Amino acid sequence: MTFKVTILGSSSAKPSVRKHHSAHTLNAYEQFYLIDCGEGTQRRLMECGISPMKINAIFISHLHGDHVFGLFPLISTLGLQGRKLPLDIYAPHPMGEILEAHYRWYDTKLPFEVRYHEVDTRSHTLIYENKVMEVWTVPLRHRTPCCGYLFREKEAGLNVRKEAIEEYGLGVAQITAAKRGEDITIDGRTIPNASLTYKPFTPRSYAYLSDTNYSGKAVSIVKGVDLLYHEATFAAEEKSLAKDTGHSTTHQAAKAAIESGATKLLIGHFSSRYKDDTLLLNEARELFPETYLAEEGTTFEIPVKKIVL
Amino acid sequence: MTFKVTILGSSSAKPSVRKHHSAHTLNAYEQFYLIDCGEGTQRRLMECGISPMKINAIFISHLHGDHVFGLFPLISTLGLQGRKLPLDIYAPHPMGEILEAHYRWYDTKLPFEVRYHEVDTRSHTLIYENKVMEVWTVPLRHRTPCCGYLFREKEAGLNVRKEAIEEYGLGVAQITAAKRGEDITIDGRTIPNASLTYKPFTPRSYAYLSDTNYSGKAVSIVKGVDLLYHEATFAAEEKSLAKDTGHSTTHQAAKAAIESGATKLLIGHFSSRYKDDTLLLNEARELFPETYLAEEGTTFEIPVKKIVL
Repeated sequence: MTFKVTILGSSSAKPSVRKHHSAHTLNAYEQFYLIDCGEGTQRRLMECGISPMKINAIFISHLHGDHVFGLFPLISTLGLQGRKLPLDIYAPHPMGEILEAHYRWYDTKLPFEVRYHEVDTRSHTLIYENKVMEVWTVPLRHRTPCCGYLFREKEAGLNVRKEAIEEYGLGVAQITAAKRGEDITIDGRTIPNASLTYKPFTPRSYAYLSDTNYSGKAVSIVKGVDLLYHEATFAAEEKSLAKDTGHSTTHQAAKAAIESGATKLLIGHFSSRYKDDTLLLNEARELFPETYLAEEGTTFEIPVKKIVL
Repeated sequence: MTFKVTILGSSSAKPSVRKHHSAHTLNAYEQFYLIDCGEGTQRRLMECGISPMKINAIFISHLHGDHVFGLFPLISTLGLQGRKLPLDIYAPHPMGEILEAHYRWYDTKLPFEVRYHEVDTRSHTLIYENKVMEVWTVPLRHRTPCCGYLFREKEAGLNVRKEAIEEYGLGVAQITAAKRGEDITIDGRTIPNASLTYKPFTPRSYAYLSDTNYSGKAVSIVKGVDLLYHEATFAAEEKSLAKDTGHSTTHQAAKAAIESGATKLLIGHFSSRYKDDTLLLNEARELFPETYLAEEGTTFEIPVKKIVL
C-alpha cells in the first residue's frame, strides 16, 4: 500500500547545473504516475532508481517547455526498450497534435499504444481511476491553460469488526451483507451497519499545483490533502511580479496549505534569481511550519492512515 | 587561435545514467559551434563550463531524437536569458517546420533571430564560413537523411620571410605585393613569390561523422583531417548488424581513419549493450593506434600547425 512522491526536478524555467526542470513521480500501490516531464526526466528517473518502463500514466500540467520537453524523449526510449503496455498521457490541447507531429518527424514507430487524453484545464474532473486510485484535474491560473492534479486513494471498503462477528455469531452471508453496508437482523432485532463495520483506513492524497497564481478555487478542491506541492516561484515581497507572471510567492503557497488544511506543504519551482533555497523555505514556514523543500531526489511517503477504533 | 573539441554526450539512442546523447562543441578562435544536440545538451554545456549563450551556430546531422531533442530546450533557454545575437541552425528538412511548430505550441517569442539553413545531406557543400573557418557537409549513409560536418581552418595568408626583406631590401609596397602572391622584380630580375613568402600554418580540421555505415565517399572528403570523430556503434564482429541499422563497427571507424589519413580518431555512440568501452577502444586500436574514446567532458585540442621553414 505504498504511497510516496519522489521529486525528480524542481527548477523554474531557467535551468541550472544545480536543478532540473519540473517532474514528480507518485508511486501508489507500485503503480507509477509521472507528473510533468521537463527535459532530462528519463535520466532523472534512472538516477532515482525508478525504471522509466514502470511509468503507467503521465500527467502534464501545461505546455511550457520546462514542464514537457522531456516527454517525447521518454516516449522514444520506451519504444527502444520494447515496451508493450499502453501508456496513458493526460495533457492539455494540442498535445495530440504534438505527439502526431513527433511520430512523423522522427519516423517513430512505437511497439506500444500511446493513449492520449486531452484534459480540460478549466474543469475539476475525474480523469483517471483504477481499483485503488483516482486522479482529478484542478484548474489553475497561469499564463497558458494549466491544471494541477489531485491524486486520491479510493475510499476503503467496509471491514466487519471481529468483536461483532463473535458477539452476534455472524455467518458468511451476514458478513458479506455487512461488508456491502447492510444492517443485519438477528432474531428480529436490527443491528445497524455502523456498529458492525469500520473503514480500515482514510484515503491518502497528494496534490500537484504548478504553475499558478494563488487560487481559492484550487484550494477548495484540494481540501484536506495530505501532501500539497504548491509552486513558490518568488519570495514573499514579489507579490506583484508573481501576479504578473502567473506564479506564486512563498507566502501564497503557505496560505494555500493553511486554507486547504494540508498536512504537509512542498514548495519548489524557485526562480533562478534565488541562490539560497532556505530563505524561501523559512518564509513559507513563518506561516506554515510543516513546509519542506521539493528537493530533487527526495521522497515523501505518506503512511497508511489507519483508523483507530 | 584555439581549436578544440569538447565531448558533451556520446551515447547511442538508448540513454543510460552513465552517458548523454550525442553532442560535441568546437571552439575555434573562441567562436563556439555545437554539433548535434541530444536531450540535456544545454545542461552538459554548463557542466563543461561553456555558457550556452556563447554558441554561435548549431549543426544537426540528422533528425533522430538522440541527436536533436535538446535543440528546442536550448533555444528556449537562450530566449529566457535574453540573447540578442542571431543563431544559425543547419539541419536537414523538415527542421524549419519543426521550429515553427514549436514556437506556436509553446507560445515562444524569442528576443533573437533563429536563422535556419536547410542542408542537403546528399551533397558535399560549403555551408558556413567566416574569416577563419569554413564548414562543409559530408554525405553519410544512415537510415534517414544524414550528413556529417567538416570544420576546416581557412588557408593562412602569405607571410614574407624576414631574410628575404633584408636580402632584397624590400619596401612596403613590395612586401604588400608579395603578400598578395605576386613575384617581385628588382633591378630587372624577377624573384619568384615562392622564394619570398611562406604560409605561417597549415589549416587544422575536425570532422564529425555520425550516424553512418562506412562510406568511402565520406572518407575521401575528409582526407588529411586532424581529428576524425567516427561513430562505432558496434564491435567488429557485428558487421551485419551495423550494416542493417545504418551504423559502423570499431574496425570500420578505424578503416575510415586509416584511409582518410586522419591524425587522431575519436570513437563513440556505442550501443548500450557494451558495458566496457575499452574493449571497443582496443578493437579500433588494433588497426589504428591513435584512437581515443569520445569520453564525455573530455577536450581534444589541436595545436597550431606551424610550418617549419
